[in-house]
Amino acid sequence: MVMEKKYTEIERLECSLCGKSYDPFKIQNLCQCGGSLVARYDLEDAKESMDKRNMSKRVLSPWRYHELLPLKDPSNIVTLGEGMTPLLQMKRLGEKLGMKDLMIKDEGMNPTGTFKARGATAGVSKAKELGIESVTVPTNGNAGAAWATYAARAGMESYIIMPKNGPEMARKEITAAGSHAYLVDGRITDANVISEQLHQDYGIFNAATLREPYRLEGKKTMGLEIMEQLNWESPDVIAFPTGGGVGLIGIYKAIQELDEMGWIDEMKTRMVCVQAAGCAPITEAWEKKEKKSMMWDESDTVAFGMNVPKSKGDFMVLDSLYSSGGYATSVDDDEILRTKQIITKEEGLFACPEGSSAVAGIKKLLDQGLIDRNEKVVVVNTGSGLKYPNTVQTSMPLLQPGDEIQIELEESTE
Amino acid sequence: MVMEKKYTEIERLECSLCGKSYDPFKIQNLCQCGGSLVARYDLEDAKESMDKRNMSKRVLSPWRYHELLPLKDPSNIVTLGEGMTPLLQMKRLGEKLGMKDLMIKDEGMNPTGTFKARGATAGVSKAKELGIESVTVPTNGNAGAAWATYAARAGMESYIIMPKNGPEMARKEITAAGSHAYLVDGRITDANVISEQLHQDYGIFNAATLREPYRLEGKKTMGLEIMEQLNWESPDVIAFPTGGGVGLIGIYKAIQELDEMGWIDEMKTRMVCVQAAGCAPITEAWEKKEKKSMMWDESDTVAFGMNVPKSKGDFMVLDSLYSSGGYATSVDDDEILRTKQIITKEEGLFACPEGSSAVAGIKKLLDQGLIDRNEKVVVVNTGSGLKYPNTVQTSMPLLQPGDEIQIELEESTE
Repeated sequence: MVMEKKYTEIERLECSLCGKSYDPFKIQNLCQCGGSLVARYDLEDAKESMDKRNMSKRVLSPWRYHELLPLKDPSNIVTLGEGMTPLLQMKRLGEKLGMKDLMIKDEGMNPTGTFKARGATAGVSKAKELGIESVTVPTNGNAGAAWATYAARAGMESYIIMPKNGPEMARKEITAAGSHAYLVDGRITDANVISEQLHQDYGIFNAATLREPYRLEGKKTMGLEIMEQLNWESPDVIAFPTGGGVGLIGIYKAIQELDEMGWIDEMKTRMVCVQAAGCAPITEAWEKKEKKSMMWDESDTVAFGMNVPKSKGDFMVLDSLYSSGGYATSVDDDEILRTKQIITKEEGLFACPEGSSAVAGIKKLLDQGLIDRNEKVVVVNTGSGLKYPNTVQTSMPLLQPGDEIQIELEESTE
Repeated sequence: MVMEKKYTEIERLECSLCGKSYDPFKIQNLCQCGGSLVARYDLEDAKESMDKRNMSKRVLSPWRYHELLPLKDPSNIVTLGEGMTPLLQMKRLGEKLGMKDLMIKDEGMNPTGTFKARGATAGVSKAKELGIESVTVPTNGNAGAAWATYAARAGMESYIIMPKNGPEMARKEITAAGSHAYLVDGRITDANVISEQLHQDYGIFNAATLREPYRLEGKKTMGLEIMEQLNWESPDVIAFPTGGGVGLIGIYKAIQELDEMGWIDEMKTRMVCVQAAGCAPITEAWEKKEKKSMMWDESDTVAFGMNVPKSKGDFMVLDSLYSSGGYATSVDDDEILRTKQIITKEEGLFACPEGSSAVAGIKKLLDQGLIDRNEKVVVVNTGSGLKYPNTVQTSMPLLQPGDEIQIELEESTE
């Protein structure tokens, strides 16, 4: 008997709090108990269908891992060419920090310039498959930009709600994508309420983080790609800048699924959560060995993607850290911006503040002796510096036509 | 006897004006006669080493086409994960324009957000191989950003000279990369003079367009990728927004080399050059069937990458158009910005003004009957909309916490 190969090996959605199961082929938000739903797959069947030595023959897209993603029919894929981002050796930067094997996974090379595109391709594709025609997303900026963009690509209506101090660039992307976009004179928690009202009053699907089950699966593909790029050998450390934490949870979920499939010989990766000192609820919880975080009042950081005072997924981030033997740490804004400068000057990579914070966090853990200088460390740069133009100040001398540049003079006056 | 496989099959640099040959393993700029030098390869040997059915097994980088690139030793590659950009079907946009098979090659998904990264990876890698330690680039913005970035990645000094009205985002990238950067109170022609002075006075390598032989080879990889993505079947039309025109020249060079290698069954691609109405010297020359363009005085366009009043490579662009049976056209700034809006609303793709002009140009040629609605048309979007934030105006309603959105009301007042 020939086993029929399925495009997805998803079996069910499982409540992260009470364990109750839900049908992944019907529209779902939260569990009745309020818990987030997490996709579970038939990893035995996936193992039969996938061959780790031949993944490179598949399509150049995170959808190459389709058995481990939630879509039934590939014709529903909504894509703008996301994923398959480079994993770059950072030799000069590593030397500067005193490390021998530092790599950066550059998620800035995604549509919309951040890793949020991965969540959007998974979430919008699945929404399309389920017949959803309009979505609402409360956002600090980049997730809203990604969902507005992918909704446009799908021909779907989107209602994006963001705090009024949200970043200008995301506003422009959201507007350009033709989204129904609103600012709220408050925080993301106020935006959440408005999105939920749209859901209640008009039946618009509320795709808020960890209320929508599939963006986690999209972000998981970062972990799948890192592992494939490292030839399925788990690195010693993976560091991720953490606001809501879905990226970190996703990467760890990827490694666990691959480990369960027997694709990883020695699972040794310690996950590292790096937060901004101005908003570090998960780091605080980790230091106290708590299972959940407390609301962080008056949060503030230049890395606005990390300004999440209380994440619905905090316990999953903490669980990933405890179970992998990893760490949480935090770095202040000055250190973030200083590190951002070093990364770009040493390696050209135009990092975002969030990604830069993760490099700074690694440096801190190195100094504390929690990471060894010989270890293989992967840091995720979650977005492009192009999305944060205000973090660079320029000052260039103005020449007149015919002027000559005197290099020695310039050097000596520096 | 086993033939030794070479990493590059480059044989010589050939003057585009007088045909004189130069050694590609020594530092070269222009021919003695002032002509640009163009790389020529042993395509017979390349054909032996490469297998078009197995290219997908190679590295995920434009360096997969290394036989057709100028580098002798892969250890000199300076990369940030450029290239391998998506070729996206534009079904909804195509329908809107009345076309059945429109695709966009999205070059916005490169490091530095434009196709200039391809020129920089080729040029900086080759400069490194030749022992060059400092480069100067006169630029309107994006090329300078790419060269500054790749020079930083290589640990090379860079001196970037740009007109003072150059784009803010490129200035930020150039500054962040630690370049020695100068503004000039004039045009790119004035910047050229200053770069050449730096070369004369300090021996800094002048990597100006078509004075440096290899950025053309990097840009050629767009054509190689398009052909591979189309399974080596040449599309009916490829449209490219044209300032200096090196992108268009490069794509056509790629197709010609592949054709010479026998990889293309039926070579039928007509090349299309689209310029801004405010700076259209090549289109004017094409309309008059001239071999070269005239200086375009008082050039002005929102698509600053296309603001090149007189390109050193004009005759090569025109030759590509005549020899492929293609066309040149121009579109005004209003049409460019209107098309940019349509592309992003219909497909999510956050295009740049230059790429949008190429879509607008295709629409014009369609209306003129020069392109048929059933033809396969590839348009290159040369950069990300993130680099042009000023081309999007935002206006979002501001809500107070607890406010409710009334959708019917909103729709009826629209």
